[in-house]
Amino acid sequence: MSKIGPMSGFPEFLPADRIVEQHFLDVIRETFELHGFASIETRAVEPVERLSNQGEDADKEIYGVRRLAAAADDEGPGIGLHFDLTVPFARYVLEHAGKLVFPFRRYQIQKVWRGERPQEGRYREFTQADIDIVDIGTLPSHYEVELPLVIADALRKLPVPEFVIKVNNRKIPEGFYRGLGLDDVATMLRIVDKIDKIGPEKVVERLIEAGATDKQAKLAVQLADISSTDTSFVEKVRALGVEHEILDEGLEQLSQVMAAAEEHAPGLLMADLRIARGLDYYTGAVYEIYLVGQESFGSVGGGGRYDALASDGKTTYPGVGISIGISRLVHRLVSQGLLKSTRSTPTAVLVALNNEDERSDALRTAAVLRGRGIPVEVAPAAAKFGKQIKFADRRGIPFVWFTTENGPEVKDIRSGEQVPADPATWAPPAHDVRPSIETPQENS
Amino acid sequence: MSKIGPMSGFPEFLPADRIVEQHFLDVIRETFELHGFASIETRAVEPVERLSNQGEDADKEIYGVRRLAAAADDEGPGIGLHFDLTVPFARYVLEHAGKLVFPFRRYQIQKVWRGERPQEGRYREFTQADIDIVDIGTLPSHYEVELPLVIADALRKLPVPEFVIKVNNRKIPEGFYRGLGLDDVATMLRIVDKIDKIGPEKVVERLIEAGATDKQAKLAVQLADISSTDTSFVEKVRALGVEHEILDEGLEQLSQVMAAAEEHAPGLLMADLRIARGLDYYTGAVYEIYLVGQESFGSVGGGGRYDALASDGKTTYPGVGISIGISRLVHRLVSQGLLKSTRSTPTAVLVALNNEDERSDALRTAAVLRGRGIPVEVAPAAAKFGKQIKFADRRGIPFVWFTTENGPEVKDIRSGEQVPADPATWAPPAHDVRPSIETPQENS
Repeated sequence: MSKIGPMSGFPEFLPADRIVEQHFLDVIRETFELHGFASIETRAVEPVERLSNQGEDADKEIYGVRRLAAAADDEGPGIGLHFDLTVPFARYVLEHAGKLVFPFRRYQIQKVWRGERPQEGRYREFTQADIDIVDIGTLPSHYEVELPLVIADALRKLPVPEFVIKVNNRKIPEGFYRGLGLDDVATMLRIVDKIDKIGPEKVVERLIEAGATDKQAKLAVQLADISSTDTSFVEKVRALGVEHEILDEGLEQLSQVMAAAEEHAPGLLMADLRIARGLDYYTGAVYEIYLVGQESFGSVGGGGRYDALASDGKTTYPGVGISIGISRLVHRLVSQGLLKSTRSTPTAVLVALNNEDERSDALRTAAVLRGRGIPVEVAPAAAKFGKQIKFADRRGIPFVWFTTENGPEVKDIRSGEQVPADPATWAPPAHDVRPSIETPQENS
Repeated sequence: MSKIGPMSGFPEFLPADRIVEQHFLDVIRETFELHGFASIETRAVEPVERLSNQGEDADKEIYGVRRLAAAADDEGPGIGLHFDLTVPFARYVLEHAGKLVFPFRRYQIQKVWRGERPQEGRYREFTQADIDIVDIGTLPSHYEVELPLVIADALRKLPVPEFVIKVNNRKIPEGFYRGLGLDDVATMLRIVDKIDKIGPEKVVERLIEAGATDKQAKLAVQLADISSTDTSFVEKVRALGVEHEILDEGLEQLSQVMAAAEEHAPGLLMADLRIARGLDYYTGAVYEIYLVGQESFGSVGGGGRYDALASDGKTTYPGVGISIGISRLVHRLVSQGLLKSTRSTPTAVLVALNNEDERSDALRTAAVLRGRGIPVEVAPAAAKFGKQIKFADRRGIPFVWFTTENGPEVKDIRSGEQVPADPATWAPPAHDVRPSIETPQENS
């Protein structure tokens, strides 16, 4: 038998930390639904051919899946685990287009798998929460404004440290480079995208090697340096003196995003012209979500607009989407001790037993409390007072229900207060009914 | 590019049916938590060696998982997708035993994968919802009473047709056969387990071939024929005149289950001495859940007690668990037209636009309504009255919010009633806030 132990890149939570994760998932789902997104789930596997031909990173590694019992030549085209939720969603849209109503707003919260080298914040199995809006033929640009507001709405309801959603528009660098006379936009973008890693001087050098003049290269780097939490980035770009139709379009669209952000989510979005997330793939807005002061950890989510999320050759389905990296975010906050659950079980009340004959009565008491929405368990065995308290205490269960000579009583084991109680009317304080999430240290 | 299409055995829901599935998952989770079960999730993969050595069915087929980029000799021991939630839970208990508090009550709702030939109700990817209670060293038998009551509590809150949880105790046939002088219990059980497939006469023949006398064989079949919805099965067994200590134990334990069922879940459990679910694996109670009148579809869940869920050689962890086959159950009910969602989106209110300039105001109205728990989306584009109504109607959105000369008004598009409305105070009727599940036909 193989050794018992963790598997690198496949993290698991203990029950208390899973409660933190569930809280995140619940708040995110609730927010997505309040914004009218419908849930879907797609199968975990897709044909390998489909997985290899799509996706935003070229370097992600696919896990192939194959029945162990299959004959070597028996399987037909191979299948693999999905590495994101965008590729399967695109397939779902094409497959079910006739039965969906467009524009289709969907959310999808599922595990994905990538055979990458595991490291902090980078897992081989992790949970993503995605929203996308996809339409037929054309997609209005106001959805590029709406989507980051939905994500901001979800994140600000969560006990997360200060975050920022950095936004750019793919048309801004494209139009800017074209206005400069640099028509190999993809190459220029790839070089400028390295600015955080190699620094601006090296970027200028490489742009010149790639055919830019000194002036062009320096302007490209200056563009990447522009950011603002309002629409003032426009003036800064204009001050560089470059003109192009596509640049105008990009500035206009990003201005709309920032104007809406100022009104509906002040301070949570930042126009940052350095953001270059998968620019060969996106065609309008691009987004990256960072924890403020923890940028070096990498983004905890991102997305953008793609004019051809899916296409069957005749019809094109443009979309815009953002994904939150739930596992990265929750593991990061839990491992830093920034969040913990008040207890490791849903149970709010332990019904104690003086002797085993009381079990049937205890089950009845428990059923009455549960019928009123209070999580209850009955003690595993009859035991002395102190042992029952200790049992509850080890799990963080705040209340123990006793049968005494004077009738039923309930004890708050934290304060020691014990009062007579009727299961039909007694309830714990609202904040004790379910475990809640504590932020042991100030974190923002 | 590979053809777009469904993959046999990997079903997916359209958004409206996904809402039905979510309702099932929500009710089941809520019930499990009210009974004090804590959520865990385990990684999707385990070492193949661990998967092949355990599990209740010998014929299940494991999906191996392997990085496509891995060198042929690079991977070490292989990994595979889990085919149930019991094997990974056993590993989780051993791995984290030092950090868990026993008896440990956990629930786990996750996908599992089996490379079986797909057919109705049998999928290659499906969702299970499991509860288990596991202890160290010994596990009190009252948990065998408690577990089916939890499942019954969940199922009776769901819009499912009449169901029954059939219960047996592994000790009853074992003690009975031993009392008869048939000591090869495993062989006898395997033969009697075929009674539904091959009929009682053939079972008698085969038992005789396996060494039983005619009298022994007939008594074994008579035992398998006994059932009752109360504790009267005990008398029927006694009437067969077989005596054994293990039989007494089994009858006593099953009586406790049925007595508790009569009090806490009348009519939902049935003692059925034919139930033989994986008897080489279970050591006490065994359970199978059926939809009444649809027994031929097979069980929609089941479980039992195992005295060695997990063992590290020194310590043994006995447990009792039951699993609900969510995918089987929901796909069955949805495909039979027994359940449907009132709409295909969470959205309760569509905020219409007279022109695109109103979008910012509309977002503000939507935010106020959402802040009060009402799911809202803003129209994709300004459009005429009729087109907005049609857009809402196609999704089943019940209310459209209009800006009129007289101020904001909201229309119930089903009744046509339109009334003035303030986003700070107006709300849809409670049953319209979220989609609900309809049972188009009487189903019980």
